[in-house]
Amino acid sequence: SKSYNITLLPGDGIGPEVISVAKNALQLVASIEGFEVAFEEMPMGGAALDAVGVPLPAETLNSAKRSDATLLGAIGGYKWDKNEKHLKPETGLLQLREGLQVFANLRPATVLPQLVDASTLKKEVAEGVDLMVVRELTGGIYFGKPRGFSTNENGQEIGFNTEVYAAYEIDRIARIAFETARKRRGKLCSVDKANVLEASMLWRKIVTALASEYPDVELSHMYVDNAAMQLVRNPKQFDTIVTNNIFGDILSDEASMITGSIGMLPSASLGAAGPGLFEPIHGSAPDIAGQDKANPLATMLSAAMLLKYGLGEEKAAQRIEAAVLDALNRGFRTGDIHSAGHKLVGCKEMGEEVLKSI
Amino acid sequence: SKSYNITLLPGDGIGPEVISVAKNALQLVASIEGFEVAFEEMPMGGAALDAVGVPLPAETLNSAKRSDATLLGAIGGYKWDKNEKHLKPETGLLQLREGLQVFANLRPATVLPQLVDASTLKKEVAEGVDLMVVRELTGGIYFGKPRGFSTNENGQEIGFNTEVYAAYEIDRIARIAFETARKRRGKLCSVDKANVLEASMLWRKIVTALASEYPDVELSHMYVDNAAMQLVRNPKQFDTIVTNNIFGDILSDEASMITGSIGMLPSASLGAAGPGLFEPIHGSAPDIAGQDKANPLATMLSAAMLLKYGLGEEKAAQRIEAAVLDALNRGFRTGDIHSAGHKLVGCKEMGEEVLKSI
Ligand SMILES: CC(C)[C@H](C(=O)O)[C@@H](O)C(=O)O
Ligand SMILES: CC(C)[C@H](C(=O)O)[C@@H](O)C(=O)O
Repeated sequence: SKSYNITLLPGDGIGPEVISVAKNALQLVASIEGFEVAFEEMPMGGAALDAVGVPLPAETLNSAKRSDATLLGAIGGYKWDKNEKHLKPETGLLQLREGLQVFANLRPATVLPQLVDASTLKKEVAEGVDLMVVRELTGGIYFGKPRGFSTNENGQEIGFNTEVYAAYEIDRIARIAFETARKRRGKLCSVDKANVLEASMLWRKIVTALASEYPDVELSHMYVDNAAMQLVRNPKQFDTIVTNNIFGDILSDEASMITGSIGMLPSASLGAAGPGLFEPIHGSAPDIAGQDKANPLATMLSAAMLLKYGLGEEKAAQRIEAAVLDALNRGFRTGDIHSAGHKLVGCKEMGEEVLKSI
Repeated sequence: SKSYNITLLPGDGIGPEVISVAKNALQLVASIEGFEVAFEEMPMGGAALDAVGVPLPAETLNSAKRSDATLLGAIGGYKWDKNEKHLKPETGLLQLREGLQVFANLRPATVLPQLVDASTLKKEVAEGVDLMVVRELTGGIYFGKPRGFSTNENGQEIGFNTEVYAAYEIDRIARIAFETARKRRGKLCSVDKANVLEASMLWRKIVTALASEYPDVELSHMYVDNAAMQLVRNPKQFDTIVTNNIFGDILSDEASMITGSIGMLPSASLGAAGPGLFEPIHGSAPDIAGQDKANPLATMLSAAMLLKYGLGEEKAAQRIEAAVLDALNRGFRTGDIHSAGHKLVGCKEMGEEVLKSI
């Protein structure tokens, strides 16, 4: 029977709790669908800093590279916030993304009927929201050079970064976005700041040039400031959004909060070839770490994305997705999505309920 | 009696309509408060492109520089969207900001009790929101060099921009922000991406260093992705926000949409000395231009900010602000903020009702 190697990176804060639950789900669906999964658990982020002094040990990156897919919990925490840049947990995450060359970050933001009340938006605005942000993940201002600190001609200290995109980087992320839109409702909105930034002008040019290859996809363009507004005004207008690394960081978090259930949202980071990286979009939540309060569903749904996009095991993915919905339908809720009339459970119990549903 | 010169820049789309209404209001409060206003109307944006081929004619900039304050309507439109960069209306606006050295952009976002239903956020989340975004306006990635297009070592076309801040630029905007917070509820949140960007690390360092000079102001820091979320989750947590040019562009638009009444929101752009620039934060709305449908209240409130911050005529400013509220209380609404039970009026009639209230 088929067998897959999966690297698990529990990371920091609530990371270990949610990973342990998702691991059980992967194991169970594998046994039902008749394939094997072998796990390798590696240190990453603050945990790796504490253990070996770097946020992404070479062995961790190698394990992820050798694997068929990697599932990450969460990284970061107050403890390492003041570290120098090369000793920040976040730097480890950026090194991992770069090391795996996962340039395409898919971030769905869906309002589940069961959780529509969790949104701070009015019901009629929130219900039915189902959008996907395709964020460029290994380029732009996150990685652009030159960057650093220096002194300007007046002896003033300066800090600087470079927002830079090459044509091929835009082309490859745009293709993923067009293909994503094609499999969804056929609408793609490219977000940029082409009225001000040259990097955005090139972005718009390359995206526009591709449109003729995808005549079935309806392409539009929007400035990032307007997109930030439109997500609040009428999020249902969006199907697929494609944008650069920093705008994608901001807009995908905004979109996730619009669903009201950021503890529910998974993400997939994919490259041209090689293993993908899958992680919940929420952070490490150090304030509730170790208290069995975390919502494991975003990580379980990330495991489902891993099965679907990373391993091609679509049926196993659907089993997890259906089980998550079933556990919600049966009334189970962690604290972050709890409301009157539902059963408040902790991380472990929520995980067990999903396993029962599987 | 005192006399002020005010440069009016109607600009494009609905700009001329809203400026004409605001001009009447300025004239009226001046006569009541016993000072004189002399107006100079100059072309700017697309209107200037059509008339003289550049988005900011030298005479327009000179008029603004000579004046005591400048009131701008709106610029831009589909017609000029494909223009080369130096022939875009937006470029004229950036040149104007740079020419006047107005580095501090104050953007209030307030939910008026009369308009709380206009927000897409639930009433309990939206009501009482009263925040101020202090956006750095003449630095960062909008103006940073090098910028442009080039070819990389692999012969690939690249587009690039530089996000750069010098210590003094951060220091001066942070001081304005601390002072703004001090006059408000004493809370300042500095927004950056210091976990990734060097420009943000310097930003955070300089802002933090100033805190001891403002012991009465409570300073906090937030990453921009989190800020985009928190504005949706619980906008009431914010009093004053200070951030860079591009993050301020995005977050202030998001915040304005949270109020649900972007047609109501003014802004002030101020320098260290010299005249300020005042403008509504909404755009030129080409789709409703010339139809007497625009909401003139944002421009009237911008005129109020002009009186207060630009001319020090606080009483005249309060007259306009009070009159705007009074017209709303008497039930008048333009289309963008209309709801059942209110009187739907056009731009001119709304202007007249505010004049009556003055
Ligand atoms: C932790 C941080 C570096 C990261 C990012 O900015 O990409 C996070 O915000 C995310 O969106 O995954
Ligand atoms: C028109 C554009 C250049 C401008 C900006 O990005 O600053 C606008 O969006 C604004 O916020 O005033």
